[in-house]
Amino acid sequence: MTTPDSLPRRRLLRAGALAGAGVGIGAGAGALGARALDERAAPEPEEVLHGQGVIPFHGPHQAGIETPAPAHATFLGLDLREETDRDGVLRLLRVLTADAARLTGGHAPLADTEPELAAVPARLTVTAGFGPGLLARAGRETPPWLAPLPAFPIDALDPAYCDGDLMLQVAADDPLALAHAVRMLLKGARSSMRLRWLQQGFRRAHGAVPSGTTMRNLFGQVDGTANPRPGTEPFARTVWIEDGPFAGGTSMVIRRIRMDVDGWDELDRSGREESLGRRLADGSPLTGTAEHDEPDFSATSAHGFPVIGEFTHVRRARGVDAADGGQSIFRRSYNYDLAPDPAAGGISESGQVFVSFQADPLAQFVPIQQRLAELDLMNEWTTPIGSAVFAIPPGAAQGEFLGQSVLE
Amino acid sequence: MTTPDSLPRRRLLRAGALAGAGVGIGAGAGALGARALDERAAPEPEEVLHGQGVIPFHGPHQAGIETPAPAHATFLGLDLREETDRDGVLRLLRVLTADAARLTGGHAPLADTEPELAAVPARLTVTAGFGPGLLARAGRETPPWLAPLPAFPIDALDPAYCDGDLMLQVAADDPLALAHAVRMLLKGARSSMRLRWLQQGFRRAHGAVPSGTTMRNLFGQVDGTANPRPGTEPFARTVWIEDGPFAGGTSMVIRRIRMDVDGWDELDRSGREESLGRRLADGSPLTGTAEHDEPDFSATSAHGFPVIGEFTHVRRARGVDAADGGQSIFRRSYNYDLAPDPAAGGISESGQVFVSFQADPLAQFVPIQQRLAELDLMNEWTTPIGSAVFAIPPGAAQGEFLGQSVLE
Ligand code: HEM
Ligand code: HEM
Repeated sequence: MTTPDSLPRRRLLRAGALAGAGVGIGAGAGALGARALDERAAPEPEEVLHGQGVIPFHGPHQAGIETPAPAHATFLGLDLREETDRDGVLRLLRVLTADAARLTGGHAPLADTEPELAAVPARLTVTAGFGPGLLARAGRETPPWLAPLPAFPIDALDPAYCDGDLMLQVAADDPLALAHAVRMLLKGARSSMRLRWLQQGFRRAHGAVPSGTTMRNLFGQVDGTANPRPGTEPFARTVWIEDGPFAGGTSMVIRRIRMDVDGWDELDRSGREESLGRRLADGSPLTGTAEHDEPDFSATSAHGFPVIGEFTHVRRARGVDAADGGQSIFRRSYNYDLAPDPAAGGISESGQVFVSFQADPLAQFVPIQQRLAELDLMNEWTTPIGSAVFAIPPGAAQGEFLGQSVLE
Repeated sequence: MTTPDSLPRRRLLRAGALAGAGVGIGAGAGALGARALDERAAPEPEEVLHGQGVIPFHGPHQAGIETPAPAHATFLGLDLREETDRDGVLRLLRVLTADAARLTGGHAPLADTEPELAAVPARLTVTAGFGPGLLARAGRETPPWLAPLPAFPIDALDPAYCDGDLMLQVAADDPLALAHAVRMLLKGARSSMRLRWLQQGFRRAHGAVPSGTTMRNLFGQVDGTANPRPGTEPFARTVWIEDGPFAGGTSMVIRRIRMDVDGWDELDRSGREESLGRRLADGSPLTGTAEHDEPDFSATSAHGFPVIGEFTHVRRARGVDAADGGQSIFRRSYNYDLAPDPAAGGISESGQVFVSFQADPLAQFVPIQQRLAELDLMNEWTTPIGSAVFAIPPGAAQGEFLGQSVLE
């Protein structure tokens, strides 16, 4: 029978390819998965496999924020059952932590009845966030910013995609690994929680384009360019909470935003670029030539108009023309594309699971969203239909459970 | 600006890795996609990219049948609008063929308003199949086998997942490439057709496990072992129609089958293996030790019972104990795993988009399904909820449109 040890010529994913993100190779994780190899397959000796890529679970920060965003993500919103008390909450978090630690390492949790599906973690991460309900149930104070966002005039929120007591962000490069991990986590949570919502999303497949390529959304835009860069000081300043019980943690804003791709398609190319302020081909600002050129918001055309218009998404998001501009958030969104309702006659049901991390949503996210809600050419084709805020506790050390510093 | 030509050290997917499946590298397709590279990315020099993998569109058979099954697939069932006449059908197929040929080669169709999303084909294939309605509208005879399957006692069919005038199977290793291709094809079809159903499915991510590894389904089973092997004579005999207007084509049966993973989980491991007749760890038959060992249906235990029980799925499927056994089909199924209805209290909505190709569904598929419907231990946890049969025309040569030999 084939075992991982009998595959010396098959180079596994090199840890270096993901350096800086704390990514290593899970030892021992492959035993089950490799047993099912098709002996007829005779793979190329140089086939590079990424299924054993492991993102360490333990650490000062939770994985799934600063680590590279894998191809697939499922976001779960859960509510505590009425009968779950403080002890029940702590028990739940111990179970979830133990299961997440095993799954992300490529090991089946103890209760796993399909352990073979756990053997290919493919950079699986599990990130937990708390809603106000969980903190209240555990008898802990809610941070002042942990509440539903203020209502925005652009919102058309469906309660089915809002709020929740616990959020789990589960992400991996392999859709089967992801489906299995989600199922195991829901199984572990089921006795004390019930599912409120579940949102699935995707980015490019692992290895389809060079790692580090900024993703594209379903409008075809390069999306994520002006993000603070993971591993840098601006990233840390933007994202991590400095003190209090959530020190080393952050906040997550998750907004389900429907994108009217049909309507967008009717706009000509320059109209689309002038709504955003960047080019579709390469994401470069209308005042530059490469994706990471700094936009020049003072540049004007021969007729004296700003090259990057005042109502463009990027200018409004940055707040160039507002007294309160300059906030920073870290966006880590996923595309969604589902079966449209045939009765409605559309050909797509598309959008983005917008996700941002920031130390303080009120000081960082809300002013940006307020500016955009007030005025942003792209609003014509985007509609927020879900919204939630969660407090992300710091990472767990070996032997700790997620949220221990907050809840104990 | 970075172009593909400036990346000499980055080895692209080697055509050899997919040899035997007619897979090459799309030349010129990378120009748009590469322009959006993040200049900060500095990928490993040896990163192997598969986004430019191209499965040739033209040929004696349509792609997407004998070619390796990529990670993601979307199946579309479409109905002709009432006003679409024979000319409209031919026009539609010309447009779809032209668009599919461009998209699968990594080129944007002419009407594409997001051409950047077409630049990473990732082994995209588009496979078209005809329902009886399309042939009637085009004034052509319907093959005797092209009709809904007989009703089976296990069926709980939802008409929302049944039948249709035209089927498009769109598949790729990259979910964004797939979403874009589906959208473009629906846009091209929209004036003459309306969407009836859309089913999405997945297998392992490209490169997560060695190519050629048999997939696993959401029961954790190795699924696809006893398939005829692409590129062999038994495959050709099973799948391709030999003469008549569909010569070089085949038939597709597509059944949406819900899998009760919760119930399955309650069964112990040996119970699950004894329902199937193969082991969960590696897919080996209960009478063997490796996945591709021939099952020995005559082997008995010390107590005189058959080792592979009479009511196991594999034994019933093969028809060992039936007078009419020995049929062969080629299965190319995809897993689905969707958001469960929170109100229903479940934690998953999972199953398989079962897809099989065979020259004659009445002679090959139906007897197998009849045996399984009559008796198969796995029926307890599987429920067919959708069903359709399509006639797959042969492949198109350059300059031809899909179905030309059938319709002209
Ligand atoms: C479907 C909805 C949205 C789409 C399609 C979208 C798309 C984009 C794109 C393409 C860019 C330019 C490239 C980049 O820097 O990432 C961008 C920038 C940005 N977006 Fe959005 N966005 C959406 C919603 C939002 C929301 C809800 C917020 C926060 C409230 C937001 C905040 C930002 C910020 C802060 C930037 C960077 C601006 C800069 O400093 O240059 N976006 N967005
Ligand atoms: C959710 C539903 C189903 C599941 C989970 C499933 C799973 C499996 C598995 C795990 C195997 C053994 C490995 C292999 O050879 O692939 C198998 C074999 C097989 N299945 Fe299914 N199956 C399903 C439905 C069907 C249906 C609807 C048909 C056709 C009517 C079918 C026909 C076959 C055949 C022909 C074999 C090979 C038997 C042999 O000759 O060894 N299966 N199936």
